Amino acid sequence: MSDLHWTTAIPSVQPNELRLRGYRIDELMGRVTFGQAVYLALKGELPSPEVGRLMDAMLVSSIDHGATPPSALAAHTVASTGATLNASIAAGVLSINRYHGGAIEDCMRLLLEAIGRFDGGSPAELASKMLAELKAQKKRAPGFGHRVHTDDPRTKRLLTLADELGISGDGVVMARAFEKGLEESLGRRLPLNVDGALAALLVDLDFPPELGNAFFTIARVTGLAAHAHEEMTRQRPMRRIHPTDHEYDGPASRELG
Amino acid sequence: MSDLHWTTAIPSVQPNELRLRGYRIDELMGRVTFGQAVYLALKGELPSPEVGRLMDAMLVSSIDHGATPPSALAAHTVASTGATLNASIAAGVLSINRYHGGAIEDCMRLLLEAIGRFDGGSPAELASKMLAELKAQKKRAPGFGHRVHTDDPRTKRLLTLADELGISGDGVVMARAFEKGLEESLGRRLPLNVDGALAALLVDLDFPPELGNAFFTIARVTGLAAHAHEEMTRQRPMRRIHPTDHEYDGPASRELG
Amino acid sequence: MSDLHWTTAIPSVQPNELRLRGYRIDELMGRVTFGQAVYLALKGELPSPEVGRLMDAMLVSSIDHGATPPSALAAHTVASTGATLNASIAAGVLSINRYHGGAIEDCMRLLLEAIGRFDGGSPAELASKMLAELKAQKKRAPGFGHRVHTDDPRTKRLLTLADELGISGDGVVMARAFEKGLEESLGRRLPLNVDGALAALLVDLDFPPELGNAFFTIARVTGLAAHAHEEMTRQRPMRRIHPTDHEYDGPASRELG
Amino acid sequence: MSDLHWTTAIPSVQPNELRLRGYRIDELMGRVTFGQAVYLALKGELPSPEVGRLMDAMLVSSIDHGATPPSALAAHTVASTGATLNASIAAGVLSINRYHGGAIEDCMRLLLEAIGRFDGGSPAELASKMLAELKAQKKRAPGFGHRVHTDDPRTKRLLTLADELGISGDGVVMARAFEKGLEESLGRRLPLNVDGALAALLVDLDFPPELGNAFFTIARVTGLAAHAHEEMTRQRPMRRIHPTDHEYDGPASRELG
Repeated sequence: MSDLHWTTAIPSVQPNELRLRGYRIDELMGRVTFGQAVYLALKGELPSPEVGRLMDAMLVSSIDHGATPPSALAAHTVASTGATLNASIAAGVLSINRYHGGAIEDCMRLLLEAIGRFDGGSPAELASKMLAELKAQKKRAPGFGHRVHTDDPRTKRLLTLADELGISGDGVVMARAFEKGLEESLGRRLPLNVDGALAALLVDLDFPPELGNAFFTIARVTGLAAHAHEEMTRQRPMRRIHPTDHEYDGPASRELG
Repeated sequence: MSDLHWTTAIPSVQPNELRLRGYRIDELMGRVTFGQAVYLALKGELPSPEVGRLMDAMLVSSIDHGATPPSALAAHTVASTGATLNASIAAGVLSINRYHGGAIEDCMRLLLEAIGRFDGGSPAELASKMLAELKAQKKRAPGFGHRVHTDDPRTKRLLTLADELGISGDGVVMARAFEKGLEESLGRRLPLNVDGALAALLVDLDFPPELGNAFFTIARVTGLAAHAHEEMTRQRPMRRIHPTDHEYDGPASRELG
Repeated sequence: MSDLHWTTAIPSVQPNELRLRGYRIDELMGRVTFGQAVYLALKGELPSPEVGRLMDAMLVSSIDHGATPPSALAAHTVASTGATLNASIAAGVLSINRYHGGAIEDCMRLLLEAIGRFDGGSPAELASKMLAELKAQKKRAPGFGHRVHTDDPRTKRLLTLADELGISGDGVVMARAFEKGLEESLGRRLPLNVDGALAALLVDLDFPPELGNAFFTIARVTGLAAHAHEEMTRQRPMRRIHPTDHEYDGPASRELG
Repeated sequence: MSDLHWTTAIPSVQPNELRLRGYRIDELMGRVTFGQAVYLALKGELPSPEVGRLMDAMLVSSIDHGATPPSALAAHTVASTGATLNASIAAGVLSINRYHGGAIEDCMRLLLEAIGRFDGGSPAELASKMLAELKAQKKRAPGFGHRVHTDDPRTKRLLTLADELGISGDGVVMARAFEKGLEESLGRRLPLNVDGALAALLVDLDFPPELGNAFFTIARVTGLAAHAHEEMTRQRPMRRIHPTDHEYDGPASRELG
């Protein structure tokens, strides 16, 4: 043992025995979904089946949202230069920041502040008060409104699932209070967006806010890999990549069986 | 439509309607696991429930394998400098290359070559022949043997699951033929390792070999996120990070309920 | 011209005519050093010969400072996995943050605040006052003191050169005032370190503080390239990289002719 | 000394004494340009003054070549998401690959092969023979021709300088032989481009070909830093970045005094 000895609470590795947070990885395989394993890796405990199912749904919600987000474009751009797949993915990961995916963490902090300040009165009143404070600081509430999706189906699905699975808690209550408060103060709906819904659920799952970025990154790496691979296999090297002038030419719209 | 117009077969986005490979993302949520969605994103079709279950198991198998692999150390190192979480993850992703995770792709190519050359005779003979060719080129068969894990429980679990789920095919047959051939030519066991088992299953799931790197990266990003977050929250900035002198101090060994 | 039309004040490119900030690149070649060109690229104007000479010296001062800094170790770690040279360099670049190289920007902000608050009295008194404020906030003055180098020869050389070249200004005056103030309040010397000296000079060259990171990165990329290349050519893949247990085996100590 | 002990031939660091390849860094400062220090770091020896001057010119030639190259666009894209400056630079660095900057290394290998095969006869004949071989393999000679710059002023300047400084050697001879051979076989000029000229000079400076990527990266990081900084300070977050529809609005065309 050197004077640089250190400890980690994540993996333990012995010959022919690999554990994650105390569980044998081979025992987890086939018995938990990847979403449940993500929860275990980040939080240190296995989720209930309900939480596991919500985790999978949350990850699926963030797997991709088009070829226009900067992370997808960064992955395409780097892939077009002859980069390796992992370098292309890394460039996409580097694009997940304050303005792209960052609303999850910001909204988690807002909701946690609201929960911390809540004194048992009306969530709606507290939300209105905090919205007024934000307005006085010329700030906008993170996690609400979207340029394109005025009624984001992912948001609705996330909250419905969380309600059905009995997971919705103070985070969801506060998110809905802010949504109502915004509608009242603006005179029009500025609905919770998918970042805000994920924030509410991550709060109710007791994730620390700084893992909002990790959550989004874990889900999105799959989309980035698909984009980078498509660039490598379908496009000519060094093409000029237009950020919006693209269209979908994959399988036609279809429904789950 | 500009002269830079391009197409993608992955996402299609309309106001309030987001689809992945033709399926509405909100419809996928809660009905498919993340492992199934990874398969859809990369391969373009939803997997059968059996393949979906195997995908989740394969991703779980690769979520982390210790604090010693260079991707974990790169993530710790970058995180220790005050980097953001996503920059730390990106550095880890950049470490997944030929010598770290790369045996998956290399072994896929070996197995695909064997399948391509197979003429209906004995897989064992073909494997022996190809091993002799590798030896003549002073190359080693990728995906076999491990410094630490002589009998990797993840390998066994992956192959057992694939057999049970009826997925094992030519990739697994050839992998086992190479394993047998190696034992015969070396006079001792040099067993299929976890990279080799993943390679065999990815071949049987009809993934192209260049997605071996993507598969490992997608799974491992979760472990990298956990390592980077731990560095940020448990360690002092700019500590000297010893590559091997660390021990586990997390939850005690435990079994799935 | 599309509705995405944008402008840049850095390069202008016509067939057979490439300009940087208005100057033809081929005309710059052979007539300015790279240090002068770095100044032009970042600041928009060519430096005087004196400033150009100082820029070269500042860049040389930061080209490398050992195999122990996390940026060097990250480059070695990624290179050891079979990564490309540029991916290895990128991992090193990702390590240049608040705790590694970041003292340049932090010290620039401190000196700029001092200059802004200076009302014509004694720099030493202002420095003492600001040091007391920092102490009350339990913060340390960035850019002062070093674990290893108590009398950093690079600092001395930078300040001597800047004095000789007539460039030292308010930044250097304030840096020296803080150095004196620290000695008085601590009862022992806590000298300006190389980050602090670079900060003082960058302030006197009128660089904005957020370019402190860029300056260090530009200089250090050379060292990172050398380290990554050495890893690829002299070391065995996937070796365990000890953060401190290394020694120098290059050319013996020698003097400039 | 642990069993992980290793050696490096680049930096040696003692308290208050930092050396690069045997020279004290503080002694180098003010006496060598950054271009000379780059040569020292990568090659291990100080260059002659002539070689140093050429190194600076070569680095200046590659500092930037517009907002359209993928490395610039990747840096802009990542910077637009709120990334740190070094993460934006890292994404640009990840774009320097086979198809972007990679012709330097490829052309170096071509020229080195020609030099190796040269038996004292006519360089022109050897070049014609090798061009015919490339054509038979349906490959193009790397380092020749450019979509936009038919008569690249940087190429001319690099070769003129190298001639004047007495540095041009076999690399330049062979590059010119290939240029002539291409004109003869095609019936039109396909001139040496800037990558090819850099390749010829790096060969004559005895750089190994795998450092072609490092050379370009070291020079270009400055341009990437300028682009990323401009994105952060002049543009609105998350704008859509058009790859070609941009124009220059910096200082008017001007000449060196």
